[in-house]
Amino acid sequence: MKIVLIGAGNVATHLGRKLVEVGHEVGQIFSRDLQKAKLLGELLAAAQVTSDLDEITNQADLYIIAVHDDAIGEVAGHLAKIGLDGKLIVHTSGATPMQVFAEAAPGLNHVGVFYPLQTFSKIRQPNFQQIPICVDAQMPEDLMLLQHLGNQLSDQVYHINDEQRATLHLAAVFVNNFTNHLFAIGENILKEGNLSFQLLLPLIRETVGKLEDGSPAAMQTGPAIRYDVETIRRHLLQLEGQPGLQEIYQLLTKSIQQTQ
Amino acid sequence: MKIVLIGAGNVATHLGRKLVEVGHEVGQIFSRDLQKAKLLGELLAAAQVTSDLDEITNQADLYIIAVHDDAIGEVAGHLAKIGLDGKLIVHTSGATPMQVFAEAAPGLNHVGVFYPLQTFSKIRQPNFQQIPICVDAQMPEDLMLLQHLGNQLSDQVYHINDEQRATLHLAAVFVNNFTNHLFAIGENILKEGNLSFQLLLPLIRETVGKLEDGSPAAMQTGPAIRYDVETIRRHLLQLEGQPGLQEIYQLLTKSIQQTQ
Repeated sequence: MKIVLIGAGNVATHLGRKLVEVGHEVGQIFSRDLQKAKLLGELLAAAQVTSDLDEITNQADLYIIAVHDDAIGEVAGHLAKIGLDGKLIVHTSGATPMQVFAEAAPGLNHVGVFYPLQTFSKIRQPNFQQIPICVDAQMPEDLMLLQHLGNQLSDQVYHINDEQRATLHLAAVFVNNFTNHLFAIGENILKEGNLSFQLLLPLIRETVGKLEDGSPAAMQTGPAIRYDVETIRRHLLQLEGQPGLQEIYQLLTKSIQQTQ
Repeated sequence: MKIVLIGAGNVATHLGRKLVEVGHEVGQIFSRDLQKAKLLGELLAAAQVTSDLDEITNQADLYIIAVHDDAIGEVAGHLAKIGLDGKLIVHTSGATPMQVFAEAAPGLNHVGVFYPLQTFSKIRQPNFQQIPICVDAQMPEDLMLLQHLGNQLSDQVYHINDEQRATLHLAAVFVNNFTNHLFAIGENILKEGNLSFQLLLPLIRETVGKLEDGSPAAMQTGPAIRYDVETIRRHLLQLEGQPGLQEIYQLLTKSIQQTQ
């Protein structure tokens, strides 16, 4: 397929790279930042790059919108204007309903979602084969096409509707964004004691490794679940002067105890 | 060395197994639960097992107390009574200061700590070589002995004093216990949407994988750090009827935003 990539961030980069790898052609790349578009264009051997939405070609088969959530509607509105009858347009956002197209660009019928459930970063090369790809589309034939495309990239392709994707995205915030913040808090606590965060890495890896064996709820350990009042008291004392951390400690401790 | 293991839980089991593997002899195992002592005794080919503290032999070189934190003092008091002059006694707790010995058993001089910084579970075989072992001792010669012993089990042995160990343990609660609870929350959110927790595993693995590349604080992503008010509002709406989760969501979002 001939693909237009709208966006040149981490999702566009890694998704584009994988699409080219399996034999698709990225014909054009749009980014507001022309320099970013050029860089990604070189990487993906794209014929054209542009920073002007009006210059987006109508000669491709698939348009992938991989921009910030709050810009998806605006981009879709632009695409509706350039005459893309019969062309398939998808966004890659976990947080944005497919409904965004009906609202921002009611003229577009062939719309869908192609959401890789993963966190992408500049320097890490993801193993796409293991990334769940959540697809949805307005039209059944487009859904089939996206499922087929997904299967070229990954072993895990799921038809996930707006409500399910919203649920997934909410859960992802807890297990990815919030978890990473707990890691940052741990790092900070160690820094104040002149200790290296490296000391905690084996523990963190094992915390995740254990998930292979069963439900996290069933494997909860620590002072909260043991109602070890003395240790909890001492920890809160150690966090004196850091009311924000004390509050997080107390709230998560209470939540663990109420989860049983 | 001839070792007495006091406790037959996960720490005693995995530590005991590794000690035997590198050539030490576990001469006796104590557990309040005789059945557990027997089971571990068979696994480690221990000569004796007992559920009576008074039956603990005074013929060993090293006594490892791997019982619940709040029982360490009591066990130490007992050991002081059976005449262990010159024998080394350590506990394996991250949450308990070495000071516990001076308080509960002032007669014991050869005391220390041998704390493997890891979460142990019944069914998973830990890779001991990569577990940081935090040692401390009252006497310099005992510290050397514990460092030597640690090096037989792991590539990472550190002299960590009471204050540092308390800091490590507090940070471990955030990155292990609290993180696992966030996983449990994520699982619960998916369950209510009839979605499998398996969908989140690649994301969770990558969240941890990224730690190899840099500080978690520098790699924070998600709606909180982007001040994506619209997504945050929608997530809180999705959590309606779950005030506990709304509170956690808001508190961690605020904490992420204040961390910059």
